[in-house]
Amino acid sequence: MISNREEVTAAIMAAKVSKGIKWSDVAAAIGLSKEWTTAACLGQMTLDKQQAEVIGEIFGLPDEAVAWLQIAPYKGSLPTAVPTDPLIYRWYEVVNVYGNTIKELIHEEFGDGIMSAIDFSMDIQREANPNGDRVNVVLSGKFLPYKTY
Amino acid sequence: MISNREEVTAAIMAAKVSKGIKWSDVAAAIGLSKEWTTAACLGQMTLDKQQAEVIGEIFGLPDEAVAWLQIAPYKGSLPTAVPTDPLIYRWYEVVNVYGNTIKELIHEEFGDGIMSAIDFSMDIQREANPNGDRVNVVLSGKFLPYKTY
Amino acid sequence: MISNREEVTAAIMAAKVSKGIKWSDVAAAIGLSKEWTTAACLGQMTLDKQQAEVIGEIFGLPDEAVAWLQIAPYKGSLPTAVPTDPLIYRWYEVVNVYGNTIKELIHEEFGDGIMSAIDFSMDIQREANPNGDRVNVVLSGKFLPYKTY
Amino acid sequence: MISNREEVTAAIMAAKVSKGIKWSDVAAAIGLSKEWTTAACLGQMTLDKQQAEVIGEIFGLPDEAVAWLQIAPYKGSLPTAVPTDPLIYRWYEVVNVYGNTIKELIHEEFGDGIMSAIDFSMDIQREANPNGDRVNVVLSGKFLPYKTY
Amino acid sequence: MISNREEVTAAIMAAKVSKGIKWSDVAAAIGLSKEWTTAACLGQMTLDKQQAEVIGEIFGLPDEAVAWLQIAPYKGSLPTAVPTDPLIYRWYEVVNVYGNTIKELIHEEFGDGIMSAIDFSMDIQREANPNGDRVNVVLSGKFLPYKTY
Amino acid sequence: MISNREEVTAAIMAAKVSKGIKWSDVAAAIGLSKEWTTAACLGQMTLDKQQAEVIGEIFGLPDEAVAWLQIAPYKGSLPTAVPTDPLIYRWYEVVNVYGNTIKELIHEEFGDGIMSAIDFSMDIQREANPNGDRVNVVLSGKFLPYKTY
Amino acid sequence: MISNREEVTAAIMAAKVSKGIKWSDVAAAIGLSKEWTTAACLGQMTLDKQQAEVIGEIFGLPDEAVAWLQIAPYKGSLPTAVPTDPLIYRWYEVVNVYGNTIKELIHEEFGDGIMSAIDFSMDIQREANPNGDRVNVVLSGKFLPYKTY
Amino acid sequence: MISNREEVTAAIMAAKVSKGIKWSDVAAAIGLSKEWTTAACLGQMTLDKQQAEVIGEIFGLPDEAVAWLQIAPYKGSLPTAVPTDPLIYRWYEVVNVYGNTIKELIHEEFGDGIMSAIDFSMDIQREANPNGDRVNVVLSGKFLPYKTY
Amino acid sequence: MISNREEVTAAIMAAKVSKGIKWSDVAAAIGLSKEWTTAACLGQMTLDKQQAEVIGEIFGLPDEAVAWLQIAPYKGSLPTAVPTDPLIYRWYEVVNVYGNTIKELIHEEFGDGIMSAIDFSMDIQREANPNGDRVNVVLSGKFLPYKTY
Amino acid sequence: MISNREEVTAAIMAAKVSKGIKWSDVAAAIGLSKEWTTAACLGQMTLDKQQAEVIGEIFGLPDEAVAWLQIAPYKGSLPTAVPTDPLIYRWYEVVNVYGNTIKELIHEEFGDGIMSAIDFSMDIQREANPNGDRVNVVLSGKFLPYKTY
Repeated sequence: MISNREEVTAAIMAAKVSKGIKWSDVAAAIGLSKEWTTAACLGQMTLDKQQAEVIGEIFGLPDEAVAWLQIAPYKGSLPTAVPTDPLIYRWYEVVNVYGNTIKELIHEEFGDGIMSAIDFSMDIQREANPNGDRVNVVLSGKFLPYKTY
Repeated sequence: MISNREEVTAAIMAAKVSKGIKWSDVAAAIGLSKEWTTAACLGQMTLDKQQAEVIGEIFGLPDEAVAWLQIAPYKGSLPTAVPTDPLIYRWYEVVNVYGNTIKELIHEEFGDGIMSAIDFSMDIQREANPNGDRVNVVLSGKFLPYKTY
Repeated sequence: MISNREEVTAAIMAAKVSKGIKWSDVAAAIGLSKEWTTAACLGQMTLDKQQAEVIGEIFGLPDEAVAWLQIAPYKGSLPTAVPTDPLIYRWYEVVNVYGNTIKELIHEEFGDGIMSAIDFSMDIQREANPNGDRVNVVLSGKFLPYKTY
Repeated sequence: MISNREEVTAAIMAAKVSKGIKWSDVAAAIGLSKEWTTAACLGQMTLDKQQAEVIGEIFGLPDEAVAWLQIAPYKGSLPTAVPTDPLIYRWYEVVNVYGNTIKELIHEEFGDGIMSAIDFSMDIQREANPNGDRVNVVLSGKFLPYKTY
Repeated sequence: MISNREEVTAAIMAAKVSKGIKWSDVAAAIGLSKEWTTAACLGQMTLDKQQAEVIGEIFGLPDEAVAWLQIAPYKGSLPTAVPTDPLIYRWYEVVNVYGNTIKELIHEEFGDGIMSAIDFSMDIQREANPNGDRVNVVLSGKFLPYKTY
Repeated sequence: MISNREEVTAAIMAAKVSKGIKWSDVAAAIGLSKEWTTAACLGQMTLDKQQAEVIGEIFGLPDEAVAWLQIAPYKGSLPTAVPTDPLIYRWYEVVNVYGNTIKELIHEEFGDGIMSAIDFSMDIQREANPNGDRVNVVLSGKFLPYKTY
Repeated sequence: MISNREEVTAAIMAAKVSKGIKWSDVAAAIGLSKEWTTAACLGQMTLDKQQAEVIGEIFGLPDEAVAWLQIAPYKGSLPTAVPTDPLIYRWYEVVNVYGNTIKELIHEEFGDGIMSAIDFSMDIQREANPNGDRVNVVLSGKFLPYKTY
Repeated sequence: MISNREEVTAAIMAAKVSKGIKWSDVAAAIGLSKEWTTAACLGQMTLDKQQAEVIGEIFGLPDEAVAWLQIAPYKGSLPTAVPTDPLIYRWYEVVNVYGNTIKELIHEEFGDGIMSAIDFSMDIQREANPNGDRVNVVLSGKFLPYKTY
Repeated sequence: MISNREEVTAAIMAAKVSKGIKWSDVAAAIGLSKEWTTAACLGQMTLDKQQAEVIGEIFGLPDEAVAWLQIAPYKGSLPTAVPTDPLIYRWYEVVNVYGNTIKELIHEEFGDGIMSAIDFSMDIQREANPNGDRVNVVLSGKFLPYKTY
Repeated sequence: MISNREEVTAAIMAAKVSKGIKWSDVAAAIGLSKEWTTAACLGQMTLDKQQAEVIGEIFGLPDEAVAWLQIAPYKGSLPTAVPTDPLIYRWYEVVNVYGNTIKELIHEEFGDGIMSAIDFSMDIQREANPNGDRVNVVLSGKFLPYKTY
């Protein structure tokens, strides 16, 4: 019996590696972006019934796992507060080094409030570059203002 | 006598607030992006002599402070490993929720390696939107592959 | 010279205690709720020019402090991640004990998403009760759904 | 053999997902609020014999599990001191940003003491709103004064 | 200008040491237990006007400090989550070693709930003993039951 | 094969819940206080051969488990440095709020030294009280002075 | 079914110890340095198909494990942020004691930037020495400058 | 009056920046490596009388500071256990990613023991390279074996 | 299949308790001190082939376990940075309370350097004493000086 | 005005360095061991009136400081839970590596209980040795047994 979403994620990863499945193909199969689809498969988003069944078929998951995919998961994909993996750490470093800068510039443009991480999307693309290709990422989040009351 | 860069940052912030200086004007004055300029003023980047003197003039800094601006600072702009400020936390949350997703997709496209946080730039823009304006951010970092040796 | 918002908060608290000012009177003076007003005085919200000047007058603050009140502050009012003060700890305890319950029930009603802490208001009232008066608090936050993209 | 309450909670969650049980139906079955009932099923409250047997029947639990439901559990529902799940984090953020405000206002109204998290109830409701529905939560806790001795 | 209660505590301790004042004498002067009185002087309890004035006189405090003594303080007297001082650590050790035991026995006697740390008193006494005198401490806290709702 | 004391504690708890055993009855069976007996069953104290055999019989433990009960365990009964369970947290809170007070008063009475947590006993009793029954706890620890050498 | 790289690393270590395999022989078999090869076997680097198959044969790994070796792993080889093992701790100590020195000297020579840990190699050699042999390590990392933008 | 080595380090850094002193020139003045000299100036090593006087002259330090330079300091140059500065973090990352590899290879060559961080030297050099210059670092530490006793 | 040294340690402890083996007898069997022998059995030291076979026979270990005993282990015997067990905590307390004292006195006698924890031995003995027997421990570590380079 | 013992320790250290005082001479002046005397001067022990006056004279302390020396201090001499200074870390390492060994051997000899860190003394001596002089330390602590009650 499956008692949490982490077991489903582990089953997906095991199937992905043994079958050589690609995230972009999974995304195409459910007709959504590769970013959202991967996050969902890694236990961070909630799928609807149809999406879950497609995912279940691709990875060969049991019915129970398909049910879990339709439940809002306890989110957070990192084992430690400061990530040790170098790729993920660079992102943490950007937040650490540029954190106050991002805050100052958003406040200068919009006033007090935040950039939403819920009404949010992300797009990761390769940019060809003669000095070495670049990873280009566009983050888009709705500005949510603090209001007085 | 000034004994660290934090004192220079504090002096810049104090002058900024009391004089009502805008980051975008400072950036224009040294002819660089508002993102890099703000980060430099907040103690995260190193200015050359000419840039430092312009900054010193804008904020009314003593010569010693201008000297400190030309020294590579001890970087890291946040007081705690997990930021408490809601705007900055949302970025930490993105790294936490999407961390493994970013890792999977960059590896799927590029193989093992990282997206540089050094050969890196950031551009923050307002996107008008009838459902509420959005903050759009483009991050661009060179892909650096792990190689065998 | 004032170099951060914490110094302004300290000046407000010092004046509040020595002059015996009440938060509810401050709130009435700027025509907003006592919850928002107190949070603003404690360095968590941003005041507009008129509000800041009223606050400055009430607490006898210098012009520089009035300028700082109009700048979006670095938020977070607690000295440690787990609060030691018993009154505040009880709230942390509620989040700890009921955290998963809140998550389950909001998801059951609304689907995956969050209750906003930005488009948010709070109202704290005394409820007379023969077994001992109660603190009644109403929290109201907009539901923000995760969407697919 | 079941050796702790966490195993019972896991069994309840597994059954809930595979059978599609709703918390509000469970609450109706034992005649209590959905908030208390969910917390109890998630290992935070103690059930009496009759309630435990109803829960056991709904989720198909073995007798041992029903016995564990009647034992006061080691409480705390979060895996880390600062929650990573965005929905729960927003509540932590409220405590962090408004912590001192809550403290000031309760003390201003009641004097020194706390709002109980034991003689406490919580009610979570959807409020229809043309700008987007809201989550409204009422927290009610007895005020407990510090006394001299 | 005094901007927090810690400065008042520091002034009390400095005066206590330089004047050789005893806590038991301070307690007698305000007619309360030595435990409550000491905690209040160390910034953990709130004094009424009359008590604060007596304390102010004993320790030679300025008026502002006397005002601060009447404000509910941010409580917590230890610099680290796990105390390093051997005397205080032994108490932490008792909680660590006997924590589950205390929990089991209170639940066995009273059912689910807590022993209040607010409706609480403490009495510390020397017990003469031929094998070495003992510190005897009586802790008394009201039992507060969790109730269903 | 049992490889640590935690497995023995888990077996004792499982048997206690499924058989409905009471700590006070266990204590009576080995002729010691309920506090020491419970702590021993929860893996914090060392039993002699005769006591261990009685415990083994009551809880239906295998011989190996009975052997482990006679070995001094690695002590510490809490899963986190700051306990999340509300009942145990209240004790941590007492240490935190009253820590310096306890230190000051023991030093005022005895001089520099500690109250032993080893040559120590604890007695937990219900005190009937018309305003709600109270938990009364007597802690008794030998005073151990620091000496010069 | 193998669901993460740690299980592969455990299988490699188990085989290494029971068969008495040496890292330098493994390195020779895939024609790379002993440093990179060992890191790869310990779950820190990604092998290509041919390398993975050789490793799989040497350690007797199942096909699934060979597939995992070709996937970029979540890196970080230490169980705690500050390593407890004395050999590894000495390296952490070097970073702690000499950290600012390394920073100052690289900045003095190269300006602001970093020494890459990705475009990086390491060579560990024994140096015979009459006062006791020495471990000599050469670290080589590309300098990556921060640039203005 | 100077009461700790950190104040001396701060004075050295302030003088270095305002006077534009280079570490390599300081090293030449006392006839030692730039690595050891910089570490000493940054409060990590102990200077003899003659060296301290030269340093005192170069940086214009008072006699008390020169005395402090001759006292073994409390070592450790980083403000947090995991460094936030990107240059220093890369070194921490090397220890984290390669930690077990370093351990395995030193043990394979030398048996159980450590590479000393005391009988240790470090040499940092620029290596010209058409693909971008490299930082080359040689670490040399005596191997110290664990022995039986 | 055994995949780490901790499993060997667990097997040794399980056998020790079920068979009633004494550390001093184990030490005698391999002809070394009880301190080194116990540390080795607890996974902190490396045994040679002959020693490992004797240990294997005493505790009834499989061949694989005997192989693991000859591999340098990842050292560190405590589950938390600050130990919770009272006996071990007292040692941590000694380091905490006397840490700076030890540092000052070794530097006063030897100059800057350390007392080795590798070229190190420990001897624990009972000292009969009419006021209660004492634990006497002799620690002996080679002094290793920091040298200039 | 002196408001805590740390200021007294800082004054002692400043005077020690500027006057070149040796701990062994201070110890001789008050007729106690160098270990206890140094610990007392570093804020870890309590001096009697006569001792405090001698210390005050040696270091040129004001009367208030002499008063503070006679007050039991808040003990703990290290700035972080895991010490960064290499000399002190080696002691922490001994506790970490040998912690369980020490526990096992003391329990084997004495049964369950602890080695006191209060009824405790320490003696640090140089041992001449042709392979390099050694630091020999004798720790002596009373064994305190856990008893049943």
